[in-house]
Amino acid sequence: MKIALAKINQTAGNIEKNLLNISKYISDAEKAKCDLIVFPEFAICGGYCGDLLLNEDFIEENIKAADKIIKESKIPVICGTVTKDGKGGLLNSVSLFYGEVSGLAGAKDNLNDSAFNDMKYFKNYNIVNIVKLANKNILFVSIDNITAIKETIKTIFKETTVKPDIVFVIGCSPYYYGKIEEFKQCFKELAVENKADFSYLNMLGGNDGYVFDGLAIYADKNGNFKLTDQSFEERLIIADTDGENVKTEQNDRNKELYDALVIGLKDYMVKNKFKKCALGVSGGIDSALVAAIAVDAIGAENVLGVLMPSKYTSKESIDCALELCKNLNIQSKTVPINDVYNTYINQLTPLFEGKPKDLTEENLQARIRSNILMALSNKFGYFILCTCNKSEDAVGYSTLYGDATGGYSVIGDLLKKDVYALSKYRNTISNVIPEFIITRPPTAELRDNQKDSDSLPEYDILDDILIKILEEKKTYSQIIKSGVKKEVLDKVWKLLSTSEYKRRQSPLGTRVSKTAFSRDITLPMSNGYKWK
Amino acid sequence: MKIALAKINQTAGNIEKNLLNISKYISDAEKAKCDLIVFPEFAICGGYCGDLLLNEDFIEENIKAADKIIKESKIPVICGTVTKDGKGGLLNSVSLFYGEVSGLAGAKDNLNDSAFNDMKYFKNYNIVNIVKLANKNILFVSIDNITAIKETIKTIFKETTVKPDIVFVIGCSPYYYGKIEEFKQCFKELAVENKADFSYLNMLGGNDGYVFDGLAIYADKNGNFKLTDQSFEERLIIADTDGENVKTEQNDRNKELYDALVIGLKDYMVKNKFKKCALGVSGGIDSALVAAIAVDAIGAENVLGVLMPSKYTSKESIDCALELCKNLNIQSKTVPINDVYNTYINQLTPLFEGKPKDLTEENLQARIRSNILMALSNKFGYFILCTCNKSEDAVGYSTLYGDATGGYSVIGDLLKKDVYALSKYRNTISNVIPEFIITRPPTAELRDNQKDSDSLPEYDILDDILIKILEEKKTYSQIIKSGVKKEVLDKVWKLLSTSEYKRRQSPLGTRVSKTAFSRDITLPMSNGYKWK
Repeated sequence: MKIALAKINQTAGNIEKNLLNISKYISDAEKAKCDLIVFPEFAICGGYCGDLLLNEDFIEENIKAADKIIKESKIPVICGTVTKDGKGGLLNSVSLFYGEVSGLAGAKDNLNDSAFNDMKYFKNYNIVNIVKLANKNILFVSIDNITAIKETIKTIFKETTVKPDIVFVIGCSPYYYGKIEEFKQCFKELAVENKADFSYLNMLGGNDGYVFDGLAIYADKNGNFKLTDQSFEERLIIADTDGENVKTEQNDRNKELYDALVIGLKDYMVKNKFKKCALGVSGGIDSALVAAIAVDAIGAENVLGVLMPSKYTSKESIDCALELCKNLNIQSKTVPINDVYNTYINQLTPLFEGKPKDLTEENLQARIRSNILMALSNKFGYFILCTCNKSEDAVGYSTLYGDATGGYSVIGDLLKKDVYALSKYRNTISNVIPEFIITRPPTAELRDNQKDSDSLPEYDILDDILIKILEEKKTYSQIIKSGVKKEVLDKVWKLLSTSEYKRRQSPLGTRVSKTAFSRDITLPMSNGYKWK
Repeated sequence: MKIALAKINQTAGNIEKNLLNISKYISDAEKAKCDLIVFPEFAICGGYCGDLLLNEDFIEENIKAADKIIKESKIPVICGTVTKDGKGGLLNSVSLFYGEVSGLAGAKDNLNDSAFNDMKYFKNYNIVNIVKLANKNILFVSIDNITAIKETIKTIFKETTVKPDIVFVIGCSPYYYGKIEEFKQCFKELAVENKADFSYLNMLGGNDGYVFDGLAIYADKNGNFKLTDQSFEERLIIADTDGENVKTEQNDRNKELYDALVIGLKDYMVKNKFKKCALGVSGGIDSALVAAIAVDAIGAENVLGVLMPSKYTSKESIDCALELCKNLNIQSKTVPINDVYNTYINQLTPLFEGKPKDLTEENLQARIRSNILMALSNKFGYFILCTCNKSEDAVGYSTLYGDATGGYSVIGDLLKKDVYALSKYRNTISNVIPEFIITRPPTAELRDNQKDSDSLPEYDILDDILIKILEEKKTYSQIIKSGVKKEVLDKVWKLLSTSEYKRRQSPLGTRVSKTAFSRDITLPMSNGYKWK
């Protein structure tokens, strides 16, 4: 049996375009003489559609799209759809499109496990239709996470009288680091336990900062992988149950994360019709990595690096920034901020009532830089990239309306240690980030001789604490016992718990972890908790 | 029977402070010789706590707090709590605290209906313990919305063998306009249908932009209200089943909305320990209303109005703004933006490659004003108020990092028509908003002779379309049939669907509708849908 799995990259809401993409892959699968083609969850509407799912016209258009596929296709098509249950309820469903036997093959009934607030839009509805195709009993389900997959499969295999030979699980579930290995393991186990073939197909591509990994798996009933494809590339892949095994794997953590960040940025820009982007290049590592990702996402010719030196900017920083632009082959422009800064200060000094210099003057510099970038965005249509990282966002070490601005936060879900790791990884492909950028101590250069470590713990200590709080959910005493100093933990918690307001106004960016701020981690902004 | 209902205003996470408040009201209820005191959902931890609910230490502190109440109280206490189910699961529960008979009185099992992502934290757990107190069978449940309340009550009354004499529903559910009447009607009906007394008590106060209305209802089994209290004021109220009826009602839509906006702002500032606020006063109606709300929330002596005129600012605007400040008795400062603006333009002109003036220059002015306000915030600790309204937010008629900035969006969930209505309402209390501000045509004054209606439909048309899309979920053809011009609808939809990125970075503010942006209405930012 030859099964085509379409790893497709759809656009939320653009049914017309998405249908063209589906048609193309159906045609390819027919040419390849496949017995069946499978598309992921939300293949027609794209994911994630949000409140478009409350729009009657949009739903009607989804339903009409099905007719078109039925008419066109010569082989059975399995496709993630949005359908109605006849009582006005909306279903997140799996449809079989194949002439007269077309119909509902399944509907999602574990909605609460979705990242996308599925319960707001859909009804839970347990439909199990085992479909007979090419003499096999095939079960199709749409599920997001491993716990739900295991539970659902257990229930179905217990309750159904016809034992499925093959189970297809389709998803539109967001990537996070670690997901791919978890899913591979899960499908292998399911196959062996249930003595059936198990296949998984996820949506591909970036949408509003979520990255769908396009993971495709086909494990036979002995737990052998006939197919695994974990590239972030749109394509048709074929699982031939009687043919050779096919594997496209990545086993490098840094490469996997880097590729996810590239597709996350690329798809956000493409799907929002931005052609060019600009970012402030400071000579620091964050903007260096973001510039490299941008170049890999949309090409050097579409990236502008803007240097905005102040009187606190060192010559090293300027040299580093220029060298980076040269290495990446991107255009650079320099806009000094001193004159604007001085004019602000002249204007504001009478209001400041003789108060000494403080954060005010530092934040002002960051805000001037943002204004300059936004002016370039307004005038030329540049999409502005935010260069904040997750460690900074965690402790509010950024300026609201200053560096924490832009259309997209490219590395906002990356801890500082991963900023280093990915920069080094990128340099193994081609040496674009100057060595000095990687080895110099981090500094915001908003006052003389400033270093990040003046205000924050060293990043290795900070990242270690953040992992314990955000990922491992350790208790206070567990963290102290692990060797963290009380005053350091108290400071980090205080900064973390009082910076939520900043994170809520920060640009959205690519999620690569299970603990992305504003998505997975949401603390109250009015937070009276004293952790101790 | 004398039942004390404690309309309390708790702080998310501050268990210590919340416990003191609970103790105070228990003591008051004891003094008033009540038979029972009832507290709302999340009375100990405050709402909404978000990921604090994933913190083991925080949960332990919640559980310990119960012991303290049990020890102190001499009358039965019913209280919304967070407890554990013995298998590591967390319950959003109702506890009875009364010496040795203390225990779980109920747990929420309709979590998906919560505004607060309850399913992320809690397990669904259907517990029905009918408690015998003062010779009455009493049922306690914690539920958020009317559909869920009706369903749950129906199930319980069908399944339980002991018929409850009184049902208490406690909540921590957010206010929206219309909620109070819906709930009163619902409780009246429930009482009559089930031939039992029905009482409701909601949390009070603002938290992160949600306002809990503190609604208290006691309807006897004949559907007569023994008690209704819909003031936004913290207090103990007593439903005496043998005594007089007590009613505190508001039947003025504008007053209700205005009061909700005042408590929303006040509580956000108080709970985040801000004492003073500042806002740009432009001479327009939005900033005028926000200034009035601020004065009513935290006192005139704590509000600063900042005039930031440019060369496009009319004398009328300056006069209006100064008159407003005078009427409200707030301090004003004037910071002209021309010098800073000109310096930016000098710096940027070489980069602009001779391109003509456009939105760039307009946005820059708005951003300079934001920078000035933020500088005052940094230097003196002013909390900055955002003055954007919902009609503007809907169509992106604001400048990102410009006027769409600040710690709190005071009227961000108010359509322009309601900005007018509430301004007029406020003037009926004392005449603070100059008449000319209310009657003049809206203008952003970012270029010569600019009017909002140059870029947007007139606000009455715009608001009408927004209501049809956001609240009534009308189809395209229904809206056209209602008399809206196709080109106007297309323009509004285009602006609405392409401005989501701006709204996601906007400050949080008080929600007063069921259709607040970023909370209730979430469109995809990469939105390919062509509505037609």
